Amino acid sequence: GTGADNDLYINQAIVFIEDAIQYRSINHRVDSRSLWLYRWYYSRTCQWILSLTITIILALAFIEKPSSLTITSDVRYRLPAWNPPCGLTESIELLCFLVFIVDVSVKSYLIGWEEFWKNKWLMAYILTLIVSLSDWIVSLSFFCTEGVRIRRILRPFFLLQNSSMMKKTLKSINSTLPEMASVVLLLAVHLSLFTMFAMLLFARTKDGQQDKEWVGYFRNLPDSLTSLLVLLTTANNPDVMIPAYSKNRAYSIFFILFTVLGNLFLMNLLTAIIYNQFRGYLLKSVQSSLFRRRLGIRAAFEVLSSLKENPANTQESYVSVRALLQVLQKVEMDSRCKQAITTSLKMCSCDQLSASQFQKLFEELDKDAIKQHPPSPEYQSHFMQKIQFAFGHPYFGYLGNVVALANIVSICVVLVMDADKQPSERDDFFLGAINCFFILYYLLEMLLKILAMGLKRYLSYPSNRFDGLLTVILLVLEIATFAVYGFPHPGWRPEFMGLLSLWDMVRLVNMLIVFRFLRIIPNMKFMALVVTTLLDLVKNLRAFAGILVVVFYAFAITGIMLFEGAVIPLGNTSFYIKKVVVLYFKEKCDFMDIFDRFQAEVIYCLFYLMSVNLICRWAKIYFVAWWLISSVIWVNLFVALLLENFIHKWDRRCHREPLSDIEYQRTVELMFRDVLEEPTEEELVEKLHKHPHLQLCR
Amino acid sequence: GTGADNDLYINQAIVFIEDAIQYRSINHRVDSRSLWLYRWYYSRTCQWILSLTITIILALAFIEKPSSLTITSDVRYRLPAWNPPCGLTESIELLCFLVFIVDVSVKSYLIGWEEFWKNKWLMAYILTLIVSLSDWIVSLSFFCTEGVRIRRILRPFFLLQNSSMMKKTLKSINSTLPEMASVVLLLAVHLSLFTMFAMLLFARTKDGQQDKEWVGYFRNLPDSLTSLLVLLTTANNPDVMIPAYSKNRAYSIFFILFTVLGNLFLMNLLTAIIYNQFRGYLLKSVQSSLFRRRLGIRAAFEVLSSLKENPANTQESYVSVRALLQVLQKVEMDSRCKQAITTSLKMCSCDQLSASQFQKLFEELDKDAIKQHPPSPEYQSHFMQKIQFAFGHPYFGYLGNVVALANIVSICVVLVMDADKQPSERDDFFLGAINCFFILYYLLEMLLKILAMGLKRYLSYPSNRFDGLLTVILLVLEIATFAVYGFPHPGWRPEFMGLLSLWDMVRLVNMLIVFRFLRIIPNMKFMALVVTTLLDLVKNLRAFAGILVVVFYAFAITGIMLFEGAVIPLGNTSFYIKKVVVLYFKEKCDFMDIFDRFQAEVIYCLFYLMSVNLICRWAKIYFVAWWLISSVIWVNLFVALLLENFIHKWDRRCHREPLSDIEYQRTVELMFRDVLEEPTEEELVEKLHKHPHLQLCR
Repeated sequence: GTGADNDLYINQAIVFIEDAIQYRSINHRVDSRSLWLYRWYYSRTCQWILSLTITIILALAFIEKPSSLTITSDVRYRLPAWNPPCGLTESIELLCFLVFIVDVSVKSYLIGWEEFWKNKWLMAYILTLIVSLSDWIVSLSFFCTEGVRIRRILRPFFLLQNSSMMKKTLKSINSTLPEMASVVLLLAVHLSLFTMFAMLLFARTKDGQQDKEWVGYFRNLPDSLTSLLVLLTTANNPDVMIPAYSKNRAYSIFFILFTVLGNLFLMNLLTAIIYNQFRGYLLKSVQSSLFRRRLGIRAAFEVLSSLKENPANTQESYVSVRALLQVLQKVEMDSRCKQAITTSLKMCSCDQLSASQFQKLFEELDKDAIKQHPPSPEYQSHFMQKIQFAFGHPYFGYLGNVVALANIVSICVVLVMDADKQPSERDDFFLGAINCFFILYYLLEMLLKILAMGLKRYLSYPSNRFDGLLTVILLVLEIATFAVYGFPHPGWRPEFMGLLSLWDMVRLVNMLIVFRFLRIIPNMKFMALVVTTLLDLVKNLRAFAGILVVVFYAFAITGIMLFEGAVIPLGNTSFYIKKVVVLYFKEKCDFMDIFDRFQAEVIYCLFYLMSVNLICRWAKIYFVAWWLISSVIWVNLFVALLLENFIHKWDRRCHREPLSDIEYQRTVELMFRDVLEEPTEEELVEKLHKHPHLQLCR
Repeated sequence: GTGADNDLYINQAIVFIEDAIQYRSINHRVDSRSLWLYRWYYSRTCQWILSLTITIILALAFIEKPSSLTITSDVRYRLPAWNPPCGLTESIELLCFLVFIVDVSVKSYLIGWEEFWKNKWLMAYILTLIVSLSDWIVSLSFFCTEGVRIRRILRPFFLLQNSSMMKKTLKSINSTLPEMASVVLLLAVHLSLFTMFAMLLFARTKDGQQDKEWVGYFRNLPDSLTSLLVLLTTANNPDVMIPAYSKNRAYSIFFILFTVLGNLFLMNLLTAIIYNQFRGYLLKSVQSSLFRRRLGIRAAFEVLSSLKENPANTQESYVSVRALLQVLQKVEMDSRCKQAITTSLKMCSCDQLSASQFQKLFEELDKDAIKQHPPSPEYQSHFMQKIQFAFGHPYFGYLGNVVALANIVSICVVLVMDADKQPSERDDFFLGAINCFFILYYLLEMLLKILAMGLKRYLSYPSNRFDGLLTVILLVLEIATFAVYGFPHPGWRPEFMGLLSLWDMVRLVNMLIVFRFLRIIPNMKFMALVVTTLLDLVKNLRAFAGILVVVFYAFAITGIMLFEGAVIPLGNTSFYIKKVVVLYFKEKCDFMDIFDRFQAEVIYCLFYLMSVNLICRWAKIYFVAWWLISSVIWVNLFVALLLENFIHKWDRRCHREPLSDIEYQRTVELMFRDVLEEPTEEELVEKLHKHPHLQLCR
């Protein structure tokens, strides 16, 4: 019936507008039941459950069997880690798998059968689930005693497939791979030619005194390759050239040439290539988001214009304002935007909206959220007005900064004076007294500012919130100290009482004071620029960080599996792997040397690595891969993104003067607004006609 | 008289055109005598003498008293360095100073009195000379026993002031300093806040077992600062966090936060800032060179148009072709350009040239030098033609590459097999035999190629020249080996004879073969791109390298002077300073540890550095400054230039297909030709009218 049709159209429009807001693709089923399922699937609760499930399955590694998560990392002191009984982690895993099965089924159903076959991510998702489940069954049938658990390496995939940003980024990285591979090949050629040179240059001689270089670093092909590879990471520089250099200074030419060519030229070439490839990356991704938004809005317009109440005789299609208002009521969106759109709809005197008017209406979504601070209170009394002027003035803020600096300096002086004193000789009176004074000043400053600005206006500034929160915490700590230990007096050195010792309390207070000093940042122009750039960068880096987590996780699990027999405590934190890499490469398994300086744990691991030659070789490949991916490629990606962000920001800085009382809340999309291209009407309509489930009349 | 005037004008035109060719400024005296002096001063001989003088005065440091230039750097084995008698280096110095005095007088005279007062470089030059001479007199009056020689630190200034490129680059770097200073300030704030945190976090506790971190790295303020500063260079990572980490894993958060903020964000921010500042640097410098060239040509036109033989009645000024030809004969310039300009002058039927025609004529100077390879010989015999086709084909070159690769692989195999053998067990027969075979193939390849291409065409390719030269050297070595040691046979292990042992000969041959393998580079597209980028970079980096030499030299001399009493062998090679820095920072003067692994020399130096506390503090500041300048700033400058060059090249790569038989000899100027702006007529004329010595009629 017409009524049911109209309801369907309204629901479609709601979903399309929500798609536009969230930058989602609109290529999903559009019948009533599917629309209900779609809204349910993308509801906050469902998405939250999915994220929680992914977090849980990833976190399982910390309590599963070869885990070593204890407070201390020193094997001599630490207690054995808690070992969950067989079946506990397995049942949690099963629950997670069930959630994923529901997830993949709903997703597959919603995009439809035809699209499903084209979507490689979904296929991989199903395959991963099948493999994981089979592995799980094997695991249970062995009562958790089996050695290899493939499903653990597959876990990060669940994180990967759930984020469209990460999938996009991965595609970008993938397209850079050929060029990166060329440079890595070049590095390999460089390395192998220099290795041959080195082996010819530092050959064994008859005089045992003369061939220290050969004994130490170039004994055979694998040794020489390793020495030069480590030189590429600069970890064994200049140790590697000392024996040759002390024989003849001219040998340093070989090492300098190798380092300059490899480190300075080829490594930086990698940066240049990655930067060149990623220069357009952010812009392109924002551009495609914009297209998705415009497409969603256009689709909503098309379905609304098919409503039976509209006159069908005109050439152009129109949407009635009434229908749009009805849709808007049900759409889940930012209340400010909804308000603004409804207002402008009511202001517009017309009854029907054309396609371009419809799009224009929703441009509110792209706009900066302008945040107006609430006004200061208006006092009647002349005295109060003077107080308001004095303590609302920026100079009062600067005075606060100066006082905070003085506090830092005083702490620093006490630290320097107390540096070499025994804990028993220490007198906490001086520090206690000055901190008490400074915290009182901070309290006074906060209260006066609230008086001058009013509580609402005070809290509307992030810097004030930061300041106020720390002041309150400091006050609470100070009161607690006095309540337990009494007021400071000369020779104030009470015994341990309550939760923390006085010394710990004072340290905590001091740390918070140092932290509070960061409030000066917004007052320094260049610092503020740098900090906002860094914050922007963090936003843009989320996808990269996610991929990094995936890589870290896969490496850690692989490490655990590869070295499980030999090295029990290895794995589960990436830091650990880093440590081993550095040790392994720097020290070249020189046991006595390490023994003096490092923990027994590391020696265990290296000893086993070395004693089992096969594993040692695997370890080398594993660590080189780790170095290439985490250190070389990821750092370069980071530098490329930082360059892109910073240069963009720097160029803009000159154009725009900050308005005094208005704060722009800039998103990545808005940063590029002046360079973005609006999609044309034809592109949108063509794309809409290719929609697999939506049949448009024209 | 008119004749004398005409001669003057002709001479002026000659000098202006030469200025244009060399991109020199035209603001110098233009009377006859000065012009003669100017041409003499800029003649090759004079400039060569000046360069030689600068080289000599800089090289003096290697033989002067606290020098340690010997073959071995090991103090236990080396002979005492040669100590020149007092007065020898001093008299060489005096000669150099005399040359510099002549240089500065001529320069000052040529630019004129008024300009002289505006030229800060010349003033500084004179000041430097005065200080150096006074220091020299003091030195002689003490019979070379005085401690401090200021004039040594001033020496690099002579290098700096002689190169206009270096002066320009220095100006550029200077304009980047405020932003760099901001980041360095930010780094300092970061470091000091984290130092305070660290001192509060890793304070001394009552339990001696628990405060290993305090004992090792955070004992007092200077120690903490040093530990974290070294962590910023990643030299002591992860050693610095092991004690705390093994106590509680959570402590690693502090170190990770510090490293991420400092190393990943702030250090890379420095790269971004420097890149941003230098993005336009190359373009701007090429643009100003272009302006100088156009100005010189225009000035030549103006003076030639004042010649009396020209009709003065017309509005526009003209230059007669005859006068220009007369000028061209006397101008020193590239013969190819001169030929081209003369030819087009003769082809042009007109008798007079307007300003724009005149400029157009000299655009020949900006053009690519197109190098046409000479043709192959044409053989009559059918058989010879077939041979020519077969061995002139690229496939024959590829075959050569494959054979070279096979040779490399065979050497590699022998090296791996012989790696652990005693020198006395080694049998050189196999390597000798295969090398003999391969070298014969290389000879054959070279001869066949010469037959097919003709000697001239063969030599016109740089890759063939490289190939041929190495083949000839290999052949000579091989013949020498056979002459001395006879032909190879099983058990070919003769005793030492002649200049080199057989083993050294074989090694030398092998190294040359590995080196010869580089001929494959032009055959791989990406490699060729990278190598040409690097070569371009080296051209553009000359000015930077010069400044780096200046900085190295000043640092080395300062180091010698600062640590002279304490450390006799320190200084004179920058590598040495690097070694000390790394040792000093990495090992924190832990003597026993170093003793096991390094040479006595280093211990001497460190021991004295530590024993004299004052010097130790100076040393810290000295090394931090060294690290900031050489490692942080210079490396970032390098990365910025590499990015600029590479991205430019990469963008161009798609546009231009390399022509088969023509090689472009691209200069930096030509790389930017499509982006450069031509200066307008008004700009040129305005600039000309501001010339301090040239009075133009209109």
